[in-house]
Amino acid sequence: MKNKTNEIKKWIAKNKGKAIVLLRRLVQEKSVQGNESSAQAVVIEACRGMGLEIDIWEPNGKKLKEHENFVSTREYFSDSPNVVAVWRGTGGGHSIILNGHIDVVPEGEINQWDCDPYEGKIENGKIYGRGTTDMKGGNVAMLLAIDALQSVGIKLKGDVIFQSVIEEESGGAGTLAAILRGYKANAALIPEPTNLKIFPKQQGSMWFRLKVKGKSAHGGTRYEGVSALEKSLIVIDKIQKLERIRNERVKDPLYANIPIPLPINLGKIEGGSWPSSVPDLITLEGRIGVGPEESLPLVKQEMEDTLNSLQNEDEWFLNHPVDLQWYGAQWLPGAIRVDHPFVELIKKNYKLVTKEEARIEASPWGTDGGLFTQVANIPTVVFGPGTTEVAHHPNEYILIENLLTSAEIFALTLLDWCEVEE
Amino acid sequence: MKNKTNEIKKWIAKNKGKAIVLLRRLVQEKSVQGNESSAQAVVIEACRGMGLEIDIWEPNGKKLKEHENFVSTREYFSDSPNVVAVWRGTGGGHSIILNGHIDVVPEGEINQWDCDPYEGKIENGKIYGRGTTDMKGGNVAMLLAIDALQSVGIKLKGDVIFQSVIEEESGGAGTLAAILRGYKANAALIPEPTNLKIFPKQQGSMWFRLKVKGKSAHGGTRYEGVSALEKSLIVIDKIQKLERIRNERVKDPLYANIPIPLPINLGKIEGGSWPSSVPDLITLEGRIGVGPEESLPLVKQEMEDTLNSLQNEDEWFLNHPVDLQWYGAQWLPGAIRVDHPFVELIKKNYKLVTKEEARIEASPWGTDGGLFTQVANIPTVVFGPGTTEVAHHPNEYILIENLLTSAEIFALTLLDWCEVEE
Repeated sequence: MKNKTNEIKKWIAKNKGKAIVLLRRLVQEKSVQGNESSAQAVVIEACRGMGLEIDIWEPNGKKLKEHENFVSTREYFSDSPNVVAVWRGTGGGHSIILNGHIDVVPEGEINQWDCDPYEGKIENGKIYGRGTTDMKGGNVAMLLAIDALQSVGIKLKGDVIFQSVIEEESGGAGTLAAILRGYKANAALIPEPTNLKIFPKQQGSMWFRLKVKGKSAHGGTRYEGVSALEKSLIVIDKIQKLERIRNERVKDPLYANIPIPLPINLGKIEGGSWPSSVPDLITLEGRIGVGPEESLPLVKQEMEDTLNSLQNEDEWFLNHPVDLQWYGAQWLPGAIRVDHPFVELIKKNYKLVTKEEARIEASPWGTDGGLFTQVANIPTVVFGPGTTEVAHHPNEYILIENLLTSAEIFALTLLDWCEVEE
Repeated sequence: MKNKTNEIKKWIAKNKGKAIVLLRRLVQEKSVQGNESSAQAVVIEACRGMGLEIDIWEPNGKKLKEHENFVSTREYFSDSPNVVAVWRGTGGGHSIILNGHIDVVPEGEINQWDCDPYEGKIENGKIYGRGTTDMKGGNVAMLLAIDALQSVGIKLKGDVIFQSVIEEESGGAGTLAAILRGYKANAALIPEPTNLKIFPKQQGSMWFRLKVKGKSAHGGTRYEGVSALEKSLIVIDKIQKLERIRNERVKDPLYANIPIPLPINLGKIEGGSWPSSVPDLITLEGRIGVGPEESLPLVKQEMEDTLNSLQNEDEWFLNHPVDLQWYGAQWLPGAIRVDHPFVELIKKNYKLVTKEEARIEASPWGTDGGLFTQVANIPTVVFGPGTTEVAHHPNEYILIENLLTSAEIFALTLLDWCEVEE
C-alpha cells in the first residue's frame, strides 16, 4: 500500500497540467444560474473518459418542489442538468459521495476584476476566474483523485458517487434533487473552499426581510410624523443584541477562533421616497447564521419573539409591529461528531500529505452539507482546496498547489474509506 | 371708509359662487411641473376680465440660470409661462406684490384619495383637490380681493402686482424670474396655506445627500468587513445631535410653540445589494431647515464641520469620510421685523374681520418669500387661507369660509397699504 501511496503522489504531480486544463475549461463555461449545461458537458466528457456510469437529468417533479427544504429562486430547471457519475466498486467497503456544485455566482462589477473572469488566467501558481475557488477547483481535485486511483491500477470495493450539482448558490435544490433521486452513501465529502481546513460542522443560514413602519409628514414639521428610520434604529439595536445573545451561547470549541460564530448580517436597507418627507416604511434585508446543531424553526421563533418584545420598549411597536418575512435562500446547517471515523481519516491523510496537523473548524456559511446530514442522514465533511477569502469576490483564484494537495488527500481517503480490492 | 368696508364684506359674501367656480376651474387644470399653461390660461382670463395689464413670458436666459439662487430640476421652461397682471394705481401710495404659485405637487398614490384629485368636489364647506390649499385657493382669494375693490368702485394709488408663478415647488425659479424681470414693490404678500396665521418669517431649507462607506464581506464572516449600515448609525446619531444643537440656539419667540423649529429630516435611505453581504455603501438623503435669519453657506459649513468631526470619534471616518452633497431643491429663508408696518396692517385687518387676535408665527417650510426678502429686498409676509396639514397630502382641501375671510383681509390691507384715491 505504501507503494501505491507514492505512485498516487507521483501521478498527481505529473498530471498537474491535465488538472489545469480541465479547470480552465470549466471556468471558461460561465455556469451562472440557468446557464450550467455547457460546464456540465465538460464534466460529462471527463467522467466518460474515466468510464464512469453517468446519470444526467433536469431536476423536476412534485416531490422536489413540495419538499420542505426546497428553496430556489426558480421553479423549472430545464437546460440546467444535474450530473452524477458513479465509479462502481467491486462490492463491500464503504460507499462515498463526492459532491460539488457547478453553479457560480455572477462576476459582479467587471471593472473590479484585473482579468477576464471567464478566461482562467494563470499567474504565480494561481488560476484566476469566477468559480476557480468556489468550487470548480474542488470538483477538479475530486475527478483528479479518481483518475489517479484508476491510473495506478486501483480497484475500490465501495462505490464512489461523483455529483456535479446545480443550484447550491441558490439554496441547494440540485443536491436535494440528487438525494430524492435515491443516491445514498456511507459518507459525503464536499470540497467547498475551506483553505484546506476540515469542517465537520457547517453553519446554516436563512434570509429575512423586516418592514418597519412609521407615519409620514412634511420634513419641516417632522415632529408630526413618526420616522420609520428612527424606529429602524431601535430595531437594528435589538437585532444586534439578539446576535450577542445567540453568540454568547456558542460553546463549541470549533468556533473558538471565530469573532462572531453566528452572525446576523443586515445586508440591505431601503426606505423613504423624498428627502423632505418623514419616511413611513423602511425595509431591511439580512441573513441569520444558524448553528450547526440548531433547528431552523426555533431560530425563526427566537427572531420573532425578539421583534415582538420591541413593544415593551416602545409603544409604537404595539400597534405597528415589525413585519418579519423569511424569504429567498435558506441553507440547512449540518454537523457530525468531530471524532467521526470519516473525519479522523481525512485528518490522518491531511497529515500524511502535508506533514502538518489538520485544522478542524466549523464553516461560517451554509453548504449542501446540511441537506446530506439532515435530509439524507449521510455523515458529511466539507473540506476543499479553494481560498475562502476570495469566494464571491473579484479576482477569485485558487492555488494550484492546494488543488493538487487536496486531490492527493481525497485519493488516500478513498483508499481507506472504500477499501481496496486486492 | 367704514361704508366701503361693509360694501366689500357684502360683495365678497355675495360672490362666493364666483370664487368657487374659479377655484374649481383652476383645480381641474392639473398644473404639475411642466404642465402649468392651461391653468395659467384660466388666470389670464380672470385678470383680463378685471382689465389688468398682463405680462406673460416663459422664464429663460443666462441671467436667470446663472443666478446663485436659481434652483430647478429643469433648465427650460417652454410652455410653462409666468403670468403677472398689474392693477395700475393712480400714483402715490405703496405698491404691493400679491404672489402665488400655480404649480402643484403630483397627487401621489391615487388610491389614498377619496375623490378625483382634479375634480374639485365640494362637500361640507370644503373644496377638495390637489392645489386647493397649496395654493390655488390663496390665489383665488387675492383675485377676489381685487375684484371686490374694483366692484365697489375703489381706485388705489399704489400698484397692485398680481403674480401667478411657476416652479415654487421645485425651488422658486418662477418668482426669481419675476424679480429679474424687474417687478418691484414696497411689500409682498404670499398666501401659502398658513391656516390664516401670519408668518413674517419663513424657514428656508436645503436638500443634502450623504454617502457612508464600508467594506464588503460575506455575511457569514461579516467581522471581516465594515458595515456601512453600522457606520450610518453613527452618522445618524451625529446628525440628530446637530439638530439638537441648532435648535437649542433658537430663541425667537415665534418658534415658542414649535417642538423642533429647525428640523433635520432624514427622508430616504438606501444601501447594500445582497442580504448576505456586508453593505459597503449607504446613501442617506434629507432636508435641513434653515432659520429665517440664517445664511445658507454658514449652515452648509456647520453640517460639513459636524461630519468632519466624526473622525475624532471613529477612526474609520479618517480614511473613509462621509461624502456630503448639496443637491436638488433649496429655499432661501426670509424674515422681516414682527412689528413691521405691513405685518401690523395685516394683524389689524385680521382682527377687524375675524374679531380675534391674529396668530403670528414663523413658517416651518420654505416659500418664495426668501427670494423676495433676500434677493429683491422686498418686505414679505406669508399669510393664507389654506389648511397647512393637508398640503401635499391625499384629500387636500380648503375651507371655503377661510378663503372668503382671507379675501376680505387682503382687500382691506390693499386699501390701507396702497391708499385710496378719493
